[in-house]
Amino acid sequence: MTAPFNFSAGPAMLPGAVLARAQEELRSWRGSGISVMEISHRDPAFMQMAAKAEQDLRELMAVPDNYQVLFMHGGGRGQFSAVPQNIAGQNDTVDYLNGGIWSDFAIREAQKYVARVNVVGGLIDTPQGRAIAPVTDWQLRDDAAYFHYCPNETVDGIALHTIPEQVQAPLVADMSSSILSEPLDVKRFGIIYAGAQKNIGPSGFAIAIVRDDLLGRAQTTASTVMDYTVQAKERSMYNTPNTWAWYLSGLVFEWLKEQGGVAAMGEVNQRKADLLYQTIDSSEFYRNPVHPDYRSKMNVPFLLADDSLDADFLRQAEQQGLLGLKGHRYVGGMRASIYNAMPLAGVEQLVEFMRDFEQKHA
Amino acid sequence: MTAPFNFSAGPAMLPGAVLARAQEELRSWRGSGISVMEISHRDPAFMQMAAKAEQDLRELMAVPDNYQVLFMHGGGRGQFSAVPQNIAGQNDTVDYLNGGIWSDFAIREAQKYVARVNVVGGLIDTPQGRAIAPVTDWQLRDDAAYFHYCPNETVDGIALHTIPEQVQAPLVADMSSSILSEPLDVKRFGIIYAGAQKNIGPSGFAIAIVRDDLLGRAQTTASTVMDYTVQAKERSMYNTPNTWAWYLSGLVFEWLKEQGGVAAMGEVNQRKADLLYQTIDSSEFYRNPVHPDYRSKMNVPFLLADDSLDADFLRQAEQQGLLGLKGHRYVGGMRASIYNAMPLAGVEQLVEFMRDFEQKHA
Repeated sequence: MTAPFNFSAGPAMLPGAVLARAQEELRSWRGSGISVMEISHRDPAFMQMAAKAEQDLRELMAVPDNYQVLFMHGGGRGQFSAVPQNIAGQNDTVDYLNGGIWSDFAIREAQKYVARVNVVGGLIDTPQGRAIAPVTDWQLRDDAAYFHYCPNETVDGIALHTIPEQVQAPLVADMSSSILSEPLDVKRFGIIYAGAQKNIGPSGFAIAIVRDDLLGRAQTTASTVMDYTVQAKERSMYNTPNTWAWYLSGLVFEWLKEQGGVAAMGEVNQRKADLLYQTIDSSEFYRNPVHPDYRSKMNVPFLLADDSLDADFLRQAEQQGLLGLKGHRYVGGMRASIYNAMPLAGVEQLVEFMRDFEQKHA
Repeated sequence: MTAPFNFSAGPAMLPGAVLARAQEELRSWRGSGISVMEISHRDPAFMQMAAKAEQDLRELMAVPDNYQVLFMHGGGRGQFSAVPQNIAGQNDTVDYLNGGIWSDFAIREAQKYVARVNVVGGLIDTPQGRAIAPVTDWQLRDDAAYFHYCPNETVDGIALHTIPEQVQAPLVADMSSSILSEPLDVKRFGIIYAGAQKNIGPSGFAIAIVRDDLLGRAQTTASTVMDYTVQAKERSMYNTPNTWAWYLSGLVFEWLKEQGGVAAMGEVNQRKADLLYQTIDSSEFYRNPVHPDYRSKMNVPFLLADDSLDADFLRQAEQQGLLGLKGHRYVGGMRASIYNAMPLAGVEQLVEFMRDFEQKHA
């Protein structure tokens, strides 16, 4: 293995085959003599590519026909305001699960647009580690316009692995770091959204999958660029989209199909996560603070027993081509993000390095 | 000349040298072994590149120190809502010049955020062609929170070549299609903004240059991602920016400096525009509908005397590598967009083709 493995949480590793193709055709897309970045989004060839990317995503996720697939500006965080502005009224109540740092940001943004953001529950500490309060303890509101949660918290490394049954309001899920990582029953959701820069493509781009019955409700102060109903009508081309990101994401979707789709990815992702957590759990030197039932399969934070070794760990890892392992600035420690583009070989190399480092320093 | 010349209005032609470099280092940025798209925006190397891009843009435009340079999501159209939401109150009056299609869209978006959008004037028809109403006729309001105009209308091919002296309110200019095309006295403006995909870089990205005294006024319903004050404080990294576009734009800024900066570009751009308008004006076969004093130097629309030849014109042009000449779907005809990246040789080849086509069909 010569190429480095990049464990960055986002912008994150992209499949090598996708980058190779993007590089090859960067200056002449489909033999046109010009770059895909230089082509009008209304050019028939671009429109055809864009539609194909949408169709591939629909196939990969088995998106039902009564959902719009939107290619949006503003990244995942742009959706924190887009969601309440699009599907709730200013006098409405909305439910949010506060499962980690990104949920917390989403809650604060929603407070700008609705009368009441009801936090139904959040993180709890248990003898086995940090967890999410059990759904039976959630304080759900009958009148909530929607229920929002983040099934995989990128910073905390905490995940809710089951779709909450008890919720009656439309489910809205921030899947920025888990979209396309395993099979998903889309029809259980009102809205699924994701910033692209983790499991899809480059940054400055987001996908929103919106059930048709939630359209037509935007608040008057919603920016037209972020209006789901307008963008649905205009096939995400109300204004010039991020054409490069759309193109690159399309290549990632093609690559995912070649890998066997989300079912195949889900199996590899499980093996990667198991290997990494087993390595951490079988050691006194490394520690993951999350309850086993709530551990993320995408973002694996871990702490060294002696944090004075953190800098050494990162430096030596980098020397071996294991990049982006520094934990989020809010929590410190280490974090290995192991999205779809990270091969099992990358995790194998990481755990080998971790064992070596432990032997030398334990 | 082997490469095609791309006259697309945007996404538009990029400098060949920039694309060559982007291609070369796409899979290993600065010898890192990974793509610039895969690197965290908070990585020191990326932060350094991002700061250098800002510094280069500041030098190119001679941006005074009391202005923020922001790298935003949402393209130029995202700024149509960002401007009123950031610097006007809901009860305010704002002045807009309606100089063409994009101004008209900006006006309609502003109406969502302020009590009164006062249109000070607009297009007029004169014996010499379409023009903008003289500034002495504008109905300016003394209490306007700002004055908005688009100095270069991409679709109409109409430009206001002087900065209006009479306006007392802070000047806000949509320079999506004219930024960096010639020297500009930035300190005359409150805000200059531009979608990137014409004269800067790839799409899904915008630049906003905001005078410090206009910060701190955002409406409570402004999306935080689009809040100038927040993004100024966070150096445009409140959320993950479009890192690829930032990188590419930085390469374009370096290229512009190598070309001699905006003064040198302004001279070449003038020659390109002169050559094209002279060709049109010296013919009975082609026609530009704009008054000579109000003609755009960036976007040159022209009509064939016999529009049944339009399809032939476009097809034959394309066969000769002259791409993207179809006029905007709102106005039809032809349009040659001749931004910074279009060399004089491209315009020379276009006028040669136009003369040939005229000889064959006139």
